[in-house]
Amino acid sequence: MNRFVDLADFPREQVKDLLGLAARLQQHPQPQALAGKVLGLLFLNPSLRTLASFQSAMMRLGGTAVVITPGQGTWQLETRSGAVMNGAAAEHVREAVPVLASYCDALGVRMFAEGRDLAADLAERDFRMMASLCDKPLINMESAVGHPCQALADWHTMDEIGVPERGKFVLSWVHHPRGLPLAVPASTVHMAAMRGMEVVVLRPEGFALPEPIMEKARQAAAASGGSVSETTDRAAALAGAHIIYAKEWCSTEHYGDVEADARLRAHLSDWCVQESWFSAADPHCRLMHCLPVRRNVAVADHVLDGPRSIVIREAFNRMVVQMAVLYRLLRG
Amino acid sequence: MNRFVDLADFPREQVKDLLGLAARLQQHPQPQALAGKVLGLLFLNPSLRTLASFQSAMMRLGGTAVVITPGQGTWQLETRSGAVMNGAAAEHVREAVPVLASYCDALGVRMFAEGRDLAADLAERDFRMMASLCDKPLINMESAVGHPCQALADWHTMDEIGVPERGKFVLSWVHHPRGLPLAVPASTVHMAAMRGMEVVVLRPEGFALPEPIMEKARQAAAASGGSVSETTDRAAALAGAHIIYAKEWCSTEHYGDVEADARLRAHLSDWCVQESWFSAADPHCRLMHCLPVRRNVAVADHVLDGPRSIVIREAFNRMVVQMAVLYRLLRG
Amino acid sequence: MNRFVDLADFPREQVKDLLGLAARLQQHPQPQALAGKVLGLLFLNPSLRTLASFQSAMMRLGGTAVVITPGQGTWQLETRSGAVMNGAAAEHVREAVPVLASYCDALGVRMFAEGRDLAADLAERDFRMMASLCDKPLINMESAVGHPCQALADWHTMDEIGVPERGKFVLSWVHHPRGLPLAVPASTVHMAAMRGMEVVVLRPEGFALPEPIMEKARQAAAASGGSVSETTDRAAALAGAHIIYAKEWCSTEHYGDVEADARLRAHLSDWCVQESWFSAADPHCRLMHCLPVRRNVAVADHVLDGPRSIVIREAFNRMVVQMAVLYRLLRG
Repeated sequence: MNRFVDLADFPREQVKDLLGLAARLQQHPQPQALAGKVLGLLFLNPSLRTLASFQSAMMRLGGTAVVITPGQGTWQLETRSGAVMNGAAAEHVREAVPVLASYCDALGVRMFAEGRDLAADLAERDFRMMASLCDKPLINMESAVGHPCQALADWHTMDEIGVPERGKFVLSWVHHPRGLPLAVPASTVHMAAMRGMEVVVLRPEGFALPEPIMEKARQAAAASGGSVSETTDRAAALAGAHIIYAKEWCSTEHYGDVEADARLRAHLSDWCVQESWFSAADPHCRLMHCLPVRRNVAVADHVLDGPRSIVIREAFNRMVVQMAVLYRLLRG
Repeated sequence: MNRFVDLADFPREQVKDLLGLAARLQQHPQPQALAGKVLGLLFLNPSLRTLASFQSAMMRLGGTAVVITPGQGTWQLETRSGAVMNGAAAEHVREAVPVLASYCDALGVRMFAEGRDLAADLAERDFRMMASLCDKPLINMESAVGHPCQALADWHTMDEIGVPERGKFVLSWVHHPRGLPLAVPASTVHMAAMRGMEVVVLRPEGFALPEPIMEKARQAAAASGGSVSETTDRAAALAGAHIIYAKEWCSTEHYGDVEADARLRAHLSDWCVQESWFSAADPHCRLMHCLPVRRNVAVADHVLDGPRSIVIREAFNRMVVQMAVLYRLLRG
Repeated sequence: MNRFVDLADFPREQVKDLLGLAARLQQHPQPQALAGKVLGLLFLNPSLRTLASFQSAMMRLGGTAVVITPGQGTWQLETRSGAVMNGAAAEHVREAVPVLASYCDALGVRMFAEGRDLAADLAERDFRMMASLCDKPLINMESAVGHPCQALADWHTMDEIGVPERGKFVLSWVHHPRGLPLAVPASTVHMAAMRGMEVVVLRPEGFALPEPIMEKARQAAAASGGSVSETTDRAAALAGAHIIYAKEWCSTEHYGDVEADARLRAHLSDWCVQESWFSAADPHCRLMHCLPVRRNVAVADHVLDGPRSIVIREAFNRMVVQMAVLYRLLRG
């Protein structure tokens, strides 16, 4: 394994092997496994879990990390090919990425969707460009439509608490003041399908996941014995659910159109998860969310603070699975 | 010891034991004592000494640190309970604190007073809330009315240079363009009282320390054999002083009222420590200040640059005593 | 060696010894050489290579680093002597530097030219003041007219690819939206002269390097057998060149006058390096640049992306030579 960019790059058995390694490293720490190794972390967007968990994961394996956040003590970076750089950006990623990679043994890159051109974002145009500049092991710390570390942590979390592999997994759109990228919903629906679950995407009109994202998940489901469907019918979706995975995302019908997106979501404030959402679910149904979560907008306090929520465990497992990813990338 | 939040939580002998450990670690470094341990540092307010000294303290014991500064590459954090989070803050401390704690072996939190509601700040409402969310060893890196690491460093500094335990300790209000929090004056008056000193709080009208702060210091003095008093009479206060501890703080008479505070301090520019302040003091009287200090506003250049100043040693001792705190929290 | 502030502080043989150590550390890593050592890095200006390469250099030798960036989670710093500090800056470097130095085994400081008073900048007034406050091994991470780490990395890079010691080195002014400091051109012309090269400074009218910079380079050339000249004649300068070192700098005729500088450079957009610049150069002529570089303003895409460019190797060598500097400063 020399890149960790998308779970779809690996056969299901290799993902399960990674999860097994994560569990073993948790039980039997190897505090010197990556001694002398340096991980570069390039953040073009804000972060809390990713920023802290990658550093701590590396440190718990004996390695170290260098964080670079353009605009925060570091130059603004240009990403456009062929740009005449007479504006605010002092440096191009064509220099910045290979230079950082040259100082490190592996490089993590976080770069959200530009959010204007759906086809470009679905094709991971920007992240692929960054990846093409890096000749070291590379980690996707969230790209336009991918967040494989979150997906792997969520898979691990469901394994830990015994969510059935054939269980019902409902990815539900939830409210947010503005449209967010598709990375987590895209990765989540694919991950749950790859795990073999009955995946239902629940979302209002105008927020259907793009067909290439759904098709990729369906292919994973076909291989694993799971299924993928979508609906606007909340009652039907939630009935019998083992997991309600709450996530905010932008209108895909009006991708890149902030005003149309705002009009569409203005009337959707009841898409805030309440305990009542669980009334027809499996009795052990849990709430998942990748965080950060806006309390009382996306999920109500009483759900986040109640026994159904496993969001803190998901976040902790970011560190756990990333230790396995780093181990595989840097030790094989 | 599993928390370091307030010197008042410990009997005097335990504080002296910590100081002894600090001295031993300084003389006999233990560069691997905390190997493999990760310290999380959450900064909701700016810092220099705390930021640098906690990292270096951890590193000098073989451990590592992860710094999180909301708004600097990380989400803005919400702290209000029950908030409907449709504003600028993307994440609530109810998630952020347990998540960070889960990645670390100990967590330091810096969170200044809100500065509006004196009763809430005196009760450490915000810091207690943060503390309640953390299930790992916790360090107060400055709260509304507490800065125990500074207090411990100052105690250690006085021991080092032989300031008598029964000596006269004058905490003097000094000028600043605007009102600052009460954390350092509150911790300092308590620390000096706990050390057994004759503590005098010298301040202009309108800047008396709140009664609960004075009462806590008086109780410490009663137990240690020291005393605590306050005055507006500079000459009387400074006569025979062994220490002049300069500190800026806000008007407590007009707590939270920025304009009234500004009117009150407008005429107080002579509260800038000069060599003349030492004329009737003990010949060996020293100047202390927690830093950062505004030169020629709070303390004159010639005092800071002269032989009376021990402010750099105080700052260095932040690292020294924090090594002892980290050792006790993480090794017992 | 207890300071690394200017290549001119060392005899040529000592610089070559440092380069030899850099090569040996690259071939035979010493991952524990600086175990337990802490490097402080104080950045008063933005950085990418310096920020990442000093951390990774330290880590690859087993040490650790603490980064302080005033204004980024840390107080703004005052540098003026005698200032009455009632403005935005909360702390003076007279406290900040000795305090940071006290936590560390060595300190790096980055502090660009103020860019108003040429004589003050040429005299390194600000950096010398910072240096006078630091009682630990000190590294110049770029000052008003010095960038010795870049110079050392560039020397090492030329050695690696076999650029003749007597080769022709053309430092060429290139375009930029605004005037930049003189640190890199000053260090570069001196380094190439010290290496023994035939150094030509090519620049438009109004951008001559100040006489003290040229004189310092001429003295180095006299000692090494090289030469230093300057011209506005591009064709003559580039003929037979082994290296074209592109660099942006401000108008020295109108130093500190932003508007006059802007008027002068408005018509100089053809000072963007193109492949045609190499037509009469040595066939193996390479392009060097310290980065960050503004593509298609200072250097054209096709040159940076072509085989002549060695800018990424120069940046990588920052880490390599800094390992040698850190080793000498901290191990002798």
